[in-house]
Amino acid sequence: MTLNILFAAAQADWPDYETPLRDALKTEGLDADLRTSFAPELVDYMVYAPSSEVKDFAPYTRLKAVLNLWAGVEGVTGNETLNVPLARMVDPGLTQGMVEWVTGHVLRHHLGMDAHIVNLDHSWHHCAPPLAQDRPVTILGYGALGAACGEMLRSLGFPVTGWSRRPGDAPGIRRLHGADGLIQALETAEILVLLLPLTGDTENLLDATSLARLPKGAVLVNPGRGALIDDGALIDALTSGQISHATLDVFRTEPLPKEHAFWSLPNVTVTPHVASETRPRTAARTIAENIRRAEDGQPLKHLVDRARGY
Amino acid sequence: MTLNILFAAAQADWPDYETPLRDALKTEGLDADLRTSFAPELVDYMVYAPSSEVKDFAPYTRLKAVLNLWAGVEGVTGNETLNVPLARMVDPGLTQGMVEWVTGHVLRHHLGMDAHIVNLDHSWHHCAPPLAQDRPVTILGYGALGAACGEMLRSLGFPVTGWSRRPGDAPGIRRLHGADGLIQALETAEILVLLLPLTGDTENLLDATSLARLPKGAVLVNPGRGALIDDGALIDALTSGQISHATLDVFRTEPLPKEHAFWSLPNVTVTPHVASETRPRTAARTIAENIRRAEDGQPLKHLVDRARGY
Repeated sequence: MTLNILFAAAQADWPDYETPLRDALKTEGLDADLRTSFAPELVDYMVYAPSSEVKDFAPYTRLKAVLNLWAGVEGVTGNETLNVPLARMVDPGLTQGMVEWVTGHVLRHHLGMDAHIVNLDHSWHHCAPPLAQDRPVTILGYGALGAACGEMLRSLGFPVTGWSRRPGDAPGIRRLHGADGLIQALETAEILVLLLPLTGDTENLLDATSLARLPKGAVLVNPGRGALIDDGALIDALTSGQISHATLDVFRTEPLPKEHAFWSLPNVTVTPHVASETRPRTAARTIAENIRRAEDGQPLKHLVDRARGY
Repeated sequence: MTLNILFAAAQADWPDYETPLRDALKTEGLDADLRTSFAPELVDYMVYAPSSEVKDFAPYTRLKAVLNLWAGVEGVTGNETLNVPLARMVDPGLTQGMVEWVTGHVLRHHLGMDAHIVNLDHSWHHCAPPLAQDRPVTILGYGALGAACGEMLRSLGFPVTGWSRRPGDAPGIRRLHGADGLIQALETAEILVLLLPLTGDTENLLDATSLARLPKGAVLVNPGRGALIDDGALIDALTSGQISHATLDVFRTEPLPKEHAFWSLPNVTVTPHVASETRPRTAARTIAENIRRAEDGQPLKHLVDRARGY
């Protein structure tokens, strides 16, 4: 029987996704009718972005699962009308892009590149940076993205600490978890990378208290979620020198409003939510594979635990 | 019998090297007398930097070998008074530092970081870069340093071409050599990294002709030797847009003179010869191992072919 699959994301994304999705569904051997509009009661699966117009899932009486197009699901986990399995996007293309962005910005700060990129005095200050082995990096959030970044940084020689809520194990990585682990992870971080999901527990995790635990002059790199950070506390820490620099890719409001202090602080780099994005071809394969799994009665990959929030 | 070892490099480096060299010589089981001054006819081995005051090796009648403290030997290969084996420095610390610098600057250009680091208009231009797999990088010079950088860039996903004078093989790398190979290596290089030794054959290798072979808008990264580049030709290529950006760590004259055009061109980044440097502890081990090899009648590691120039 033909499966009715609704593409419920931004219409602007449809041209990028239509062909990759059709190809991937075919590759999985699925007989699918993929459209941007259906009568709700006819929809079997929904390819979804939290920015979609669909906010009430109740009319989708036949819906078997929702396949999120984004890695972040905080815009949908609280939706009480959604009662079917929800899968996060884990896209190899998104992971790869994130590894490139995180590795690049960690190396940028490690090597002190900015002083050479902007050097109006034309000063020649010959002072080589320490080797990566002497620059401890901590990654908060050690899921698929965090671990991929941690492995690459480790292969470059950085001593890497990976922290997550739950215990985990990763060869060559100092894996910490829980509240006590968080304190240790912060205390040694010359460069701190945020790759946590946004949940009730992680919102404002980087507040005045946790920022004060970092070594004086630490660098903060946030390609995760804007609301992980208490903006006011970070601005204070940047002003006092507790944090020497913040490179931020994500914000509570995007685009970052023109009047926001992050734009004018000399020790903040704003990047416009480019650390990584879902790539249609690789993401389409993830989605089609999950629909095939659901049809075969297998559990979805990257299933969201709604209570946990990710 | 005690070996007399002369440290013939800058006096300013002696405090950094004395203890690491003594420790490394002891570790190799050598009975050595290490000093910054000896009567020439008493010297068995010389730890040498081409900036040394020693220019005439003739009085060193007992000299068995010269151990260069630098990776570059162009300042000594032409010295006709030197008639004993000469070893280049291949320092694991120097290699590691070079990998960090090259990887960092390749990622910086790949990700277009500069537009975010200097963004006076506070513009939010959401446009993610391509993945590394779509950004071909060529490394000219595929010796110890080039290969270490190539491996790291490959592990980040970049398609890497490695060119050297002589043929070679490296898994996952497009290895090219010779004059025809050079043309192919240049034609595909969106980012070109120079890690060649400076010899009669490589001086001015990057001239108007070879720069014109690069794809329009290519990026040049030079942590090798300043004289690999015809400065005037590069300035023309930067002005015309044939080269979109050059990040240069080494120059014909260092520090780079204040009046040099590289300082004022908006699309040049000058870094003050920090891409990598010899690290005393690891370099000392390389030197001590080679002295022990010479004493045991084994060939020196990293022996310079004086005719070839490296």
